[in-house]
Amino acid sequence: MRELGVVHTAIERADPGAVARLSALGVATVHEAMGRLGLMHPSIRPIYPGARLCGTAVTVLMQPGDNWMLHVAVEQVRPGDVVVAACTAQSHDGFFGELLATSMRARGALGLVIDGGCRDVAELERISFPVFSAAIHAKGTVKATPGSVNVPVVCANTLVEPGDVILADADGVVVVPAAKAAETAAAGEAREAGEETKRRRLAAGELGLDIYQMRDELRARGLRYVD
Amino acid sequence: MRELGVVHTAIERADPGAVARLSALGVATVHEAMGRLGLMHPSIRPIYPGARLCGTAVTVLMQPGDNWMLHVAVEQVRPGDVVVAACTAQSHDGFFGELLATSMRARGALGLVIDGGCRDVAELERISFPVFSAAIHAKGTVKATPGSVNVPVVCANTLVEPGDVILADADGVVVVPAAKAAETAAAGEAREAGEETKRRRLAAGELGLDIYQMRDELRARGLRYVD
Amino acid sequence: MRELGVVHTAIERADPGAVARLSALGVATVHEAMGRLGLMHPSIRPIYPGARLCGTAVTVLMQPGDNWMLHVAVEQVRPGDVVVAACTAQSHDGFFGELLATSMRARGALGLVIDGGCRDVAELERISFPVFSAAIHAKGTVKATPGSVNVPVVCANTLVEPGDVILADADGVVVVPAAKAAETAAAGEAREAGEETKRRRLAAGELGLDIYQMRDELRARGLRYVD
Amino acid sequence: MRELGVVHTAIERADPGAVARLSALGVATVHEAMGRLGLMHPSIRPIYPGARLCGTAVTVLMQPGDNWMLHVAVEQVRPGDVVVAACTAQSHDGFFGELLATSMRARGALGLVIDGGCRDVAELERISFPVFSAAIHAKGTVKATPGSVNVPVVCANTLVEPGDVILADADGVVVVPAAKAAETAAAGEAREAGEETKRRRLAAGELGLDIYQMRDELRARGLRYVD
Amino acid sequence: MRELGVVHTAIERADPGAVARLSALGVATVHEAMGRLGLMHPSIRPIYPGARLCGTAVTVLMQPGDNWMLHVAVEQVRPGDVVVAACTAQSHDGFFGELLATSMRARGALGLVIDGGCRDVAELERISFPVFSAAIHAKGTVKATPGSVNVPVVCANTLVEPGDVILADADGVVVVPAAKAAETAAAGEAREAGEETKRRRLAAGELGLDIYQMRDELRARGLRYVD
Amino acid sequence: MRELGVVHTAIERADPGAVARLSALGVATVHEAMGRLGLMHPSIRPIYPGARLCGTAVTVLMQPGDNWMLHVAVEQVRPGDVVVAACTAQSHDGFFGELLATSMRARGALGLVIDGGCRDVAELERISFPVFSAAIHAKGTVKATPGSVNVPVVCANTLVEPGDVILADADGVVVVPAAKAAETAAAGEAREAGEETKRRRLAAGELGLDIYQMRDELRARGLRYVD
Repeated sequence: MRELGVVHTAIERADPGAVARLSALGVATVHEAMGRLGLMHPSIRPIYPGARLCGTAVTVLMQPGDNWMLHVAVEQVRPGDVVVAACTAQSHDGFFGELLATSMRARGALGLVIDGGCRDVAELERISFPVFSAAIHAKGTVKATPGSVNVPVVCANTLVEPGDVILADADGVVVVPAAKAAETAAAGEAREAGEETKRRRLAAGELGLDIYQMRDELRARGLRYVD
Repeated sequence: MRELGVVHTAIERADPGAVARLSALGVATVHEAMGRLGLMHPSIRPIYPGARLCGTAVTVLMQPGDNWMLHVAVEQVRPGDVVVAACTAQSHDGFFGELLATSMRARGALGLVIDGGCRDVAELERISFPVFSAAIHAKGTVKATPGSVNVPVVCANTLVEPGDVILADADGVVVVPAAKAAETAAAGEAREAGEETKRRRLAAGELGLDIYQMRDELRARGLRYVD
Repeated sequence: MRELGVVHTAIERADPGAVARLSALGVATVHEAMGRLGLMHPSIRPIYPGARLCGTAVTVLMQPGDNWMLHVAVEQVRPGDVVVAACTAQSHDGFFGELLATSMRARGALGLVIDGGCRDVAELERISFPVFSAAIHAKGTVKATPGSVNVPVVCANTLVEPGDVILADADGVVVVPAAKAAETAAAGEAREAGEETKRRRLAAGELGLDIYQMRDELRARGLRYVD
Repeated sequence: MRELGVVHTAIERADPGAVARLSALGVATVHEAMGRLGLMHPSIRPIYPGARLCGTAVTVLMQPGDNWMLHVAVEQVRPGDVVVAACTAQSHDGFFGELLATSMRARGALGLVIDGGCRDVAELERISFPVFSAAIHAKGTVKATPGSVNVPVVCANTLVEPGDVILADADGVVVVPAAKAAETAAAGEAREAGEETKRRRLAAGELGLDIYQMRDELRARGLRYVD
Repeated sequence: MRELGVVHTAIERADPGAVARLSALGVATVHEAMGRLGLMHPSIRPIYPGARLCGTAVTVLMQPGDNWMLHVAVEQVRPGDVVVAACTAQSHDGFFGELLATSMRARGALGLVIDGGCRDVAELERISFPVFSAAIHAKGTVKATPGSVNVPVVCANTLVEPGDVILADADGVVVVPAAKAAETAAAGEAREAGEETKRRRLAAGELGLDIYQMRDELRARGLRYVD
Repeated sequence: MRELGVVHTAIERADPGAVARLSALGVATVHEAMGRLGLMHPSIRPIYPGARLCGTAVTVLMQPGDNWMLHVAVEQVRPGDVVVAACTAQSHDGFFGELLATSMRARGALGLVIDGGCRDVAELERISFPVFSAAIHAKGTVKATPGSVNVPVVCANTLVEPGDVILADADGVVVVPAAKAAETAAAGEAREAGEETKRRRLAAGELGLDIYQMRDELRARGLRYVD
């Protein structure tokens, strides 16, 4: 599945309408709408408060301590894309900074998800370029060994195929396969609508125990109340 | 000590006056006032800057990846309580989110301390519901296996009994046994008063070496000065 | 190299002019200007957003759970210094808080870098005393065993000699040997100037692949493009 | 619950007969027999292969980097005891080595469980003194600040009361409250007996799916088989 | 890619001849033969010294703290298979023990790779059932929520498809896609043959600098020798 | 202090007689004899049980994921040396394996200490080449960027100068500056002699409390005994 030394220039991106609908939802909601799948490992965190992104994946497979493929990836970016950078081994060096962000943004990239380190985080916050990374680290990287662009990658313990929808917010990062973007958006919207009713009832003091009718099942499982 | 499958409905809460006095102090001060005891492990962090809480513990013992008991706990909450959720094994899944917060707040809960994951953190910040958690993670949980409510629990390497005072701020979380709430408040207030004098002297340029009379002891322990 | 029980009172500090020039640069730039050396381990993080410091090192070698030497170090601080505290073994206890900050500031200290824990972080943010630490932890420390002040120390996997320049910002902490301060400042300034040109070209949509003339080398290393 | 500066000289130990029965069981079995409670955090590991112990707890509350209370504890040891050492904050220094082991063994101690570091591990293996620790580290410790002996402690996220049964083997460490030792031994023995039958059936090729009659429940939960 | 609630009963396994050839090689060699791809994260370690396995993958997607799918997977095992168990979120509970090993072995399984915890490790060593796991933990698990069997899974940051070759030894775990098994075996064998010559020359005192002709390149990259 | 791109060919090694004496001592003893200094971080562990080494340091500064300098270092090895490999950033890739060990041994190297990953660990155990590493990982590395040989390095949070004595056993790794080798050996031997007497007294049942005369000091510090 993983290939080294290849750049795929023609990838199929998720439907823009579905991406737009997903961008209105939260990571937790979308993860639930997919049947509780698709989340990256929680070690991937926003580099500044309020960072958020939703777009289609241009994937990158990097070598440890080597950011060459990020430069290669920029050329493959189209407006609305999110760069997703995985690495062939864990590496928290600073693969990415403000110059690469400037370049990616010039091509229309909405942000970056990287299973590695990021630097220039103050500047990136100032120019509002959202990055979700495994570390913040100023360590410079080399340009010595090819990886790949737009191959399927495993990023933070999750499979990402080029063109998949990447949604990231304060709760983390979720990956929606391109083919499931529309149905996931619909399921997420339905879930949100249902939550609104529950929220009102809970805010009014009703108990989840009653709304979700949990009492019988809890008793059946042996839960007992003691004064 | 730990029991599964039980909800204790009648617990003795710390004296409200003592809780109010403790709520005016900081975690570091109260920890010192207890003789340097009572701190949770520092892996428990606020989910947003400025989060702070002080109240009486409703304890929850959860199963890994299972948030059923949080729903059960809501019914036991009274105004001024803080829910303290421990788990029978380490689990960073997203046990808690904004709907449960809405429900807990409707019952008067002031916040949550959880040795597990939390999600919907942007919404929780927006509605100012303070949570101190071991992780931020969108991963959904199941409702399959009973734990307990209002039993003594070990949360983040610290014993918490139902009714204890829980104080949490940017420095972490400290647990004050209900029976020691008043004396701890008094000791903390005394410590704060004493610090004010020291602060002024130090700000004026006096040295701690002189204020605390450390020079002789340091010399006795062998410290020497070299040009 | 490491010595216990000694305070060196006469140290040679880096040239103030070079320090001033370095203070205008970022950590990533200075690290690059040194040939990609001098960075502390990325576990050292600012205790509040926006924390930043640049000054000359007063070094401290502490014993685990013992902050005695921080009190000793205060007397050695001169205006423009940064205290750099290493420990003889990993310890995340709260060695440092607002009273010590008040004292250090009264002597002219600009901030603290500590391979250990820090507390009173809300107060430290309020008084804008920048600290870069390995942990936030309220745990109190003792004053029982001498360490040293102004000896060479290894802090967060990096050697620091008394008088070295310490620069810290959102990207981490970099150490510039005093003797290399001026040349590093010059190299950093040159790097920044060069980046400005690149930034403009990248912002205009030019590719790093072309600006840095990477295409031939990539092809030589076997990178191939596939539709 | 936690107290500093106290040595309790009279503690009630679990019934020796129950301890003997528990010592014939494994940690996983006993943990199951208690309803899946009582396990320490899995970061506590044996310092050599084959280490195993079962005895009654003499508890120690240490200060970080300070092993004074281990010396105090030795005097409280009786034949058949296991020393359980917790710390007021995480500390991986080498609190314990071969001399203390010699001393403890002379008093009849069967081994040590410590939420901290251990050293002299080759010698400890040579003399077959079992230790379960959070780290192996040669770092020496001081004798400066009192803790306590034979107070309830939280060790590796688990409550231990003096006199509780401590069972440790390759799978970790489990704590059995003294009052539940006999009933836990009985439940564990029953569980082992039941497992023998299952083992034979499984070894003969029968499936757990059939032995435990899981197929209907799985189907009800939606599991489907696809060629 | 990930699916919940499905068991695929018909999977295509790698060619047995290729598996046999791969089983004679080491993990490092095979990883190199694949162009340095296919390794699991190094947190996956053998539970006892000398553990080793090579077979075709039956994949399992588990829910955190829930080992139900391992029981389901047993039925899908054929002689020569290795069970590879991933989880929808990180969970170090004891999903697997000696009874499941007995059952898997009765069906012909050669061992287990699990991104989770394992227990009964002394028994597993005694019966020589090799397990490579992320943790050793006695914590019991439930049987409450379906996952899947024989779907593609991401295990320890690596994609595994049912039928892939799994090779594990003291150096870790490598995954060879079924379609590449034969060519990888050939490449690995060639690599081993080449190493034998190098080994002899190196053992005789020749330098890698000369054998690999590195001196010119090093000089070109600026390496200089100083007395 | 750190320099890139340099190989120092003439280094001063510690006195062979002192090295021989240190080799008869344990890491904990030598660390104590140095006043409790010189230990590497405990994350550095032997790759097989019983690994042990004592020799003079040939230091290496590697780039992350790049083992080129290990090949360069081999040429600088003389009989009795230990290679100590640090890295400019944390990297757990497999920098070292059996071929490099063969080459180093041919030059007289006694073993390796590496703040990085190691592979071929079964072979290294078979040929008894001791390695102390931060990880076991099969991941291959590149040869792309020069580092240095025989410059002072910081390895696992400890300064190592070329020619220093490196002693490593089951308790970890300690570094003795060349100039202090003889005095440290003498202090360590004295310490060992003193321990023999204590060991006999403790084995006979005397208490450390009495041998070390701790009772008065403990009472003075407030320790009290309660029935």
